Amino acid sequence: MSEEKLTSRSENFSEWYNQLVQRAEMADYAPVRGCMVVRPYGWALWENIQAALDRRFKATGHVNAAFPLFIPMSFLEKEKEHVEGFSPELAVVTIGGGETLEEPLVVRPTSETIIGHMYAKWIKSYRDLPVLINQWANVVRWEMRTRLFLRTLEFYWQEGHTAHATYDEAEEETLRILDLYTDFAVNEAAVPVIPGRKSDAEKFAGAQRSYTIEAMMGDTRALQAGTSHNLGQNFAKAFEIRYLDDQNELQYCWTTSWGLSTRFVGAIIMTHGDDQGLILPPRLAPIQVVIVPIFRNDEEKSLVMPAVETLKGQLEGMRLKVDERTELTPGFKFNDWEMRGVPLRIEIGPKDVQNGVVTAARRDIPGKAGKIAIPAANARTEIESLLTNIQAALLQRATDFRDSNIHPVDTYEELSQVVQNGWAFAYWCGSSECELKVKEDTKATTRCIPCDQQSGAGRCVVCNQPAAEKVYFAKAY
Amino acid sequence: MSEEKLTSRSENFSEWYNQLVQRAEMADYAPVRGCMVVRPYGWALWENIQAALDRRFKATGHVNAAFPLFIPMSFLEKEKEHVEGFSPELAVVTIGGGETLEEPLVVRPTSETIIGHMYAKWIKSYRDLPVLINQWANVVRWEMRTRLFLRTLEFYWQEGHTAHATYDEAEEETLRILDLYTDFAVNEAAVPVIPGRKSDAEKFAGAQRSYTIEAMMGDTRALQAGTSHNLGQNFAKAFEIRYLDDQNELQYCWTTSWGLSTRFVGAIIMTHGDDQGLILPPRLAPIQVVIVPIFRNDEEKSLVMPAVETLKGQLEGMRLKVDERTELTPGFKFNDWEMRGVPLRIEIGPKDVQNGVVTAARRDIPGKAGKIAIPAANARTEIESLLTNIQAALLQRATDFRDSNIHPVDTYEELSQVVQNGWAFAYWCGSSECELKVKEDTKATTRCIPCDQQSGAGRCVVCNQPAAEKVYFAKAY
Repeated sequence: MSEEKLTSRSENFSEWYNQLVQRAEMADYAPVRGCMVVRPYGWALWENIQAALDRRFKATGHVNAAFPLFIPMSFLEKEKEHVEGFSPELAVVTIGGGETLEEPLVVRPTSETIIGHMYAKWIKSYRDLPVLINQWANVVRWEMRTRLFLRTLEFYWQEGHTAHATYDEAEEETLRILDLYTDFAVNEAAVPVIPGRKSDAEKFAGAQRSYTIEAMMGDTRALQAGTSHNLGQNFAKAFEIRYLDDQNELQYCWTTSWGLSTRFVGAIIMTHGDDQGLILPPRLAPIQVVIVPIFRNDEEKSLVMPAVETLKGQLEGMRLKVDERTELTPGFKFNDWEMRGVPLRIEIGPKDVQNGVVTAARRDIPGKAGKIAIPAANARTEIESLLTNIQAALLQRATDFRDSNIHPVDTYEELSQVVQNGWAFAYWCGSSECELKVKEDTKATTRCIPCDQQSGAGRCVVCNQPAAEKVYFAKAY
Repeated sequence: MSEEKLTSRSENFSEWYNQLVQRAEMADYAPVRGCMVVRPYGWALWENIQAALDRRFKATGHVNAAFPLFIPMSFLEKEKEHVEGFSPELAVVTIGGGETLEEPLVVRPTSETIIGHMYAKWIKSYRDLPVLINQWANVVRWEMRTRLFLRTLEFYWQEGHTAHATYDEAEEETLRILDLYTDFAVNEAAVPVIPGRKSDAEKFAGAQRSYTIEAMMGDTRALQAGTSHNLGQNFAKAFEIRYLDDQNELQYCWTTSWGLSTRFVGAIIMTHGDDQGLILPPRLAPIQVVIVPIFRNDEEKSLVMPAVETLKGQLEGMRLKVDERTELTPGFKFNDWEMRGVPLRIEIGPKDVQNGVVTAARRDIPGKAGKIAIPAANARTEIESLLTNIQAALLQRATDFRDSNIHPVDTYEELSQVVQNGWAFAYWCGSSECELKVKEDTKATTRCIPCDQQSGAGRCVVCNQPAAEKVYFAKAY
């Protein structure tokens, strides 16, 4: 870590983000354009995200599997909207083992097609349904403008693919996963997302209905943080995914797909970070507590280190780091761990030991206000409760920030102003023309039609025609 | 699962394997030549393998990260032996986003080069060493003759890449991992591997020394089940991985790499399986215990199901499945779970309930000999102890089989005969000519020079020249 200060968020949010991702050693640029290296600290965060999601997937009856990286080009062409959506972004293998391939292979941008092919082979009868499979995988989309975690050529994600006997069951699954993502985002990452439906223009290529969780970043821009798609029978018909029902009649399945990616790491950084660096939610932080021993000589060291060892013992099972580097000052270490967003720092100096305390410093409350002397004897309980408080405080702060930057608007003029630096919430007639006009005039897009919508009706903020639903407009990542 | 019998191992081992992998729903052929789909049951086994290894990696100070899938072609060319070894097997992306790429990108066959490039960027001083990074990843090698799990175009593995200040530290790391792999294979998978050094002809392209764990499959052929390489300074020099030592002088690093792949799933199948199907070691089995309730009418059901629920409660935390399928007979279910290799089956029928017992059937001991009535009240302790016994019995059986098929040989004639159906253990002078002669005459290759070698000296089994070490010769997968 260099000792230079980060560019501040208010000065240049985008530059702040780019510097922070690298200085905190979350990720680095790879030697291939648009690709990233996820460094150990960033990957440890992703592993915790994976564990929190995987636990939820398994608890709802899903199992993991692995489907091939390579997809025959002809597969993508079987679903019309799908190939139109993805063909500009494909990476294509044309040579294998020194020979030009007869049929080029696409490096998967998503796996509906190849999984659909396998489901057609595996599913015979209604007894085989539902099929509830997820995979943790890398995918490739040839993006032109890339940013670490937010948009990279290769990224890591989970993609769930399910097959059902009825439309209702597929829709239920799609919404179950939307709930699951919301629960994960709010309760694990302290990112207060808004679940809702995508407009037709914004939905997944090949989906009948797409749902999303939308998050507000620290610069008020929106980020699509996870999506869940009801694919109807589009892929079932393209790939002949059929089953014999209990009357022995052949029926097409109804399928869904849903994904959440390493992009979510970017969401955590941009939701909670401040000018000193990352702030990681305790439930996902790779290191929850860092202990910094403070001493100037051997005598002080012999006082401090036994107290450090005692605390370490008390905190067993927590994600803990003791910073024993000898070549660095405590001040440097404080900055370093602040940059990396460790939620709680514990300082133990000779005075602390004499007073029978340890000093805790909350990452989310800078300076003296966040420092608390904790009785050493009772440290574990206190530290656990501090972590719980930090988790709750991060969620509260992000929720307050979001809510203060969402503005209900009634007129097009208000809309145009609000989306410069916030989200507008407005009635919309649902037409693509109105949506496109907003995009062209302001660069803001429809983010989602929230699931939780007070019933009512009004007039479209763009065309003034009757409108049944409200939608969020915002500039997005 | 179809009710047809498997081809028997003695009749056609290779056909037995191919049928079993598919019938047990471990994997399936993908629509791309040589690629596989790992089905949920196979992936669950791989996840348990991953967890057992990852725990060991982390306990020895390693951290995980993720490096890109794509490697510029020019990177591979920087290490001469490496590019020679891998260039015939490359899959190459030549088109991205609709445009022909200026420099083709290789889909990684292994990641020494791109990781070397990043290490050169990250490592500055001796304080940065050692770097101990692992990644769980997919890799692609354009193989011509493929088999599910054993050799596929795309496979899944972990690849560790470490950098050190001295040769000794690198060699120590290489051997630490060899030990770790051995411990994993023996104590988790019950696969009694032999750790040893590879001959020069068999070592990794670009390595200074390669170590391997070699396992004997049920047909006596050898399978290389994991490898650990001391790369010397080959990659450090090719990629300029250097550090300032404590005298402020620039030095090249010493690097290692090591990997274990989904091939190991094949090793487990071919070590333990029998003519009824898989036999999975309890420590890795996705399902450790399957409970099959047995009843013919509602009265019996009302007797049996409460006992099933009680047992389920007792076994909480174990990997457990209750087979409640109503459309299938108990006999069909028994065959089904035997095919899938669940180590222990528990049958609960009305008589069992009346007698206060449950009936356990060991997968590793067919028929009545493997059936034990267990007092229901004490079921958990008994079942845990049975699983421990099964784990130990599998290891013992595989070790006995291996040892009875390894033969020390002194003459070339003996060697030629033994390797038709077993392993030969013989003095070898170390020359590539002798090794090649054996290969050409018998198709057997040197498998490893075991680490644990009684000191002594003899004469090479091929050329009769003095030889310091003994080596295993065998036909291999």
